[in-house]
Amino acid sequence: MTASAKDMLNTYPADLGGVDPDAMSRCIEACAACAQACTACADACLSEGMVGDLTKCIRTDMDCADICTATAAVLSRHTGYDANITRAIVQACAIACKACADECAKHADMHEHCRLCAEACRTCEQACNELLATLG
Amino acid sequence: MTASAKDMLNTYPADLGGVDPDAMSRCIEACAACAQACTACADACLSEGMVGDLTKCIRTDMDCADICTATAAVLSRHTGYDANITRAIVQACAIACKACADECAKHADMHEHCRLCAEACRTCEQACNELLATLG
Amino acid sequence: MTASAKDMLNTYPADLGGVDPDAMSRCIEACAACAQACTACADACLSEGMVGDLTKCIRTDMDCADICTATAAVLSRHTGYDANITRAIVQACAIACKACADECAKHADMHEHCRLCAEACRTCEQACNELLATLG
Amino acid sequence: MTASAKDMLNTYPADLGGVDPDAMSRCIEACAACAQACTACADACLSEGMVGDLTKCIRTDMDCADICTATAAVLSRHTGYDANITRAIVQACAIACKACADECAKHADMHEHCRLCAEACRTCEQACNELLATLG
Repeated sequence: MTASAKDMLNTYPADLGGVDPDAMSRCIEACAACAQACTACADACLSEGMVGDLTKCIRTDMDCADICTATAAVLSRHTGYDANITRAIVQACAIACKACADECAKHADMHEHCRLCAEACRTCEQACNELLATLG
Repeated sequence: MTASAKDMLNTYPADLGGVDPDAMSRCIEACAACAQACTACADACLSEGMVGDLTKCIRTDMDCADICTATAAVLSRHTGYDANITRAIVQACAIACKACADECAKHADMHEHCRLCAEACRTCEQACNELLATLG
Repeated sequence: MTASAKDMLNTYPADLGGVDPDAMSRCIEACAACAQACTACADACLSEGMVGDLTKCIRTDMDCADICTATAAVLSRHTGYDANITRAIVQACAIACKACADECAKHADMHEHCRLCAEACRTCEQACNELLATLG
Repeated sequence: MTASAKDMLNTYPADLGGVDPDAMSRCIEACAACAQACTACADACLSEGMVGDLTKCIRTDMDCADICTATAAVLSRHTGYDANITRAIVQACAIACKACADECAKHADMHEHCRLCAEACRTCEQACNELLATLG
């Protein structure tokens, strides 16, 4: 079994500075899952016959994937913690996830990849907002 | 429940061109888990009192995280498949994972984060090699 | 000669929606240069004899590199523009660059890599703020 | 003026282990420029009326951007150098750049973004191959 984000967090050898380990771990894993779903959804949209109707969806998927990947990396670090950076990137991530969920939701009835991607984005948006609520 | 890589793969609307969906999905998820473990291990090493003895481990963790993240993204795309690119990046990923597993294993008795990270790297190395065996 | 960000922007085939092409291009190139400087500075810090005094600098460098890379990618896309995402990631980037410039500046007298990295971060922070001023 | 990859390389405080600083710096800067060109070309393709004819180009652009970004990061690190990892990722990068140059070249007469992107890919492929020739 590969270690979860929570398992790795538990091995951090110094003080976590008041971080909520559950909210943090959930957000890291939601970001990683959302990045994968968005990358796959962008590619699936690209192979739809009606790709011309899905260009905004593809673009938002790509932005959301890039921002989720950066956010997961930042949240996986605890050394020399800077609350300003954490808060700013988690806020950007919540905004990208909301935008991508809203866009994918418009195509969810037609495309199962958009439906699943919208769910991953909503889950990640919520995990970001729950983490933000625990930050000082 | 957020969609797994396998769930997303199942929604791809065109021909997958002979890809083994199980080997592919396992490799994507192993890459994502390994990237997270490596980023967290690099950071945990940075907060050890004996950080000066862990600089090669930190560096290899960072390379492995970057290569796993790129590999997961490439493997999440199926449109206009190019076997040469896939093979090359999965080979690079297997090599980085092996190097990182070997380096982390040296510190596994002292540092639980290195032990867990070595396991994640071994799992990902194996998933890469199993995927390579299925590629034409 | 490889195309600059401005050259690529000039080839975009649709309406740029009021984007200031100079501020946009400068920000993309500043993000790319800052990501490289931060990655190199983190690695140079890791090879200093006094690495134990530089752990916060290394961590901030890594966050700044990840956020600058994501920002450069988002700013390189214009299809289906969403001002909310752009604004949020550019704000996060400005905050990360300011934090990293401040941290590197503390070591600039001792380490030339920190001095150059602080300069790259200040340039990128300013390019982000100038771009933000042009966004609606 | 923001520091170039060569400027940063010159500040590395330990032994570079026989790396050719010119070939290394050129490859880092070619990777960064190619990643930007590929991201911009993918987005420009997405906004062409005939996007349905450009899906393989978009996909190859995205792979090439991801691999170039990872390669630039790996090459920006010198601590605890592992020639196997460097060689594998630079080879993967050369392969991705060749594939993307070949694909973009097919559309270069129609689309200036494809022409410029093909050039950036050729430059990066060559920089990768020149760097590989200097590695032991």
